Amino acid sequence: MERPLILITNDDGVSAPGIRALIAVMSEIGEVIVVAPDKPQSAMGHAITINNTLHLNKISKETDSITEYSCSGTPVDCVKIAVHEILKRKPDLCVSGINHGSNSSINVIYSGTMSAAVEAGIEGIQAIGFSLLDYDWDADFEQIKSYIKNITLEVLNKKLPEGVILNVNFPKLKEKEIKGIKICRQANAIWMEKFDKRKTPQGKDYYWLTGEFVNQDKGEDTDEWALANGFVSIVPVQFDLTAHHAIQNLTNRDWK
Amino acid sequence: MERPLILITNDDGVSAPGIRALIAVMSEIGEVIVVAPDKPQSAMGHAITINNTLHLNKISKETDSITEYSCSGTPVDCVKIAVHEILKRKPDLCVSGINHGSNSSINVIYSGTMSAAVEAGIEGIQAIGFSLLDYDWDADFEQIKSYIKNITLEVLNKKLPEGVILNVNFPKLKEKEIKGIKICRQANAIWMEKFDKRKTPQGKDYYWLTGEFVNQDKGEDTDEWALANGFVSIVPVQFDLTAHHAIQNLTNRDWK
Repeated sequence: MERPLILITNDDGVSAPGIRALIAVMSEIGEVIVVAPDKPQSAMGHAITINNTLHLNKISKETDSITEYSCSGTPVDCVKIAVHEILKRKPDLCVSGINHGSNSSINVIYSGTMSAAVEAGIEGIQAIGFSLLDYDWDADFEQIKSYIKNITLEVLNKKLPEGVILNVNFPKLKEKEIKGIKICRQANAIWMEKFDKRKTPQGKDYYWLTGEFVNQDKGEDTDEWALANGFVSIVPVQFDLTAHHAIQNLTNRDWK
Repeated sequence: MERPLILITNDDGVSAPGIRALIAVMSEIGEVIVVAPDKPQSAMGHAITINNTLHLNKISKETDSITEYSCSGTPVDCVKIAVHEILKRKPDLCVSGINHGSNSSINVIYSGTMSAAVEAGIEGIQAIGFSLLDYDWDADFEQIKSYIKNITLEVLNKKLPEGVILNVNFPKLKEKEIKGIKICRQANAIWMEKFDKRKTPQGKDYYWLTGEFVNQDKGEDTDEWALANGFVSIVPVQFDLTAHHAIQNLTNRDWK
């Protein structure tokens, strides 16, 4: 097989240790190109830049083995500009991450890491988002590299079902403590928001968003269960947001 | 019945004509509170503000019949801060819009208008996003007000299925030309991106994201079909992104 062309992005920014670890793994598998945000873009969801300009900087040198760009936009912008402006052909795979922190359960909808992978999926590219349950900048990504390599090879070899992207989360464990991989559904958990209200030096109120993660979904088929029990969780994610199961119920109503 | 408490937001900003029209309709139905972005936040998707401060300004006077706040954050931030910081009780309904422009098919995933409604859904609040297929600031929202009122009353009276949010799009037609309402699935359409490459006055490249909307989904059960044929489209939307249909396929694979 020809070496696959792999697009790498993230939401923590191009200089984050997580993306550096992902680049190291992907370089063993294929030809790699990096297009990632020039600054942290966590929690940017599926935001795109339509009312502002986008700036690209080639940050690798001609002598480097891997071509890297930083982009002023969101993670989704990075995928769009990589596919339509930088890459000479559609990549065989897009990987996003490794995120510093969890993107399990409801976090997937806020996550820039996962939105980048989902955008690739929308464009018909096999895509995986990787996240480690450790927000630390110095998180130990070595422990999960062999898992990332195996999952990636499986996806390249067998392909994902159409319209499906993988959301892969890793527990914060040593490699030998990890019990294996579970295919899961997203747990029905939420953030209970709290706003930390403060005063500016001028005496005006302002707020910081904080919150507590609450999982009342005890299902053993969920990503939260898998992660809490030492497994790697893989949730297949889709970009068709239609609640197909609700169409019949709503069609039977008298709307006018 | 007690007058319902209705939270109104949007992504075009608190001063947009679309939200003004929505406020007018909702004031006939219930007690209204407005918390909307202080500037345009189109295409912000499900972005939230976690690495920056949030600022709220009460923009209505004490003598005004409706309480209004502008917020420095994204549409999703507006819903979070309204529910957890401003409102004394959980609202009976959250409506978002009326968006200046379509949020049909794949647009739903990029849309700040719809993400605000989806966030309300995540928080267990009945929610509807309204959009008119007219990007003009002077779009004629009068033509769709009776539809918006009827759809809202139906939702308040009968409730939506759990975890379902409505994505309502209106064709750019006169009221009497509108043929009725269709419950639809989201069409499988995409944006074919093009980047408009320009030079700064200093001679450095930069880009504007542009694109062409391409719908190859001819299904007559889609929102695009309904809108092209003179109907109001209502797509039930969900925030569980799990591709449940793919779990079996992926579980049967050899992941390690």
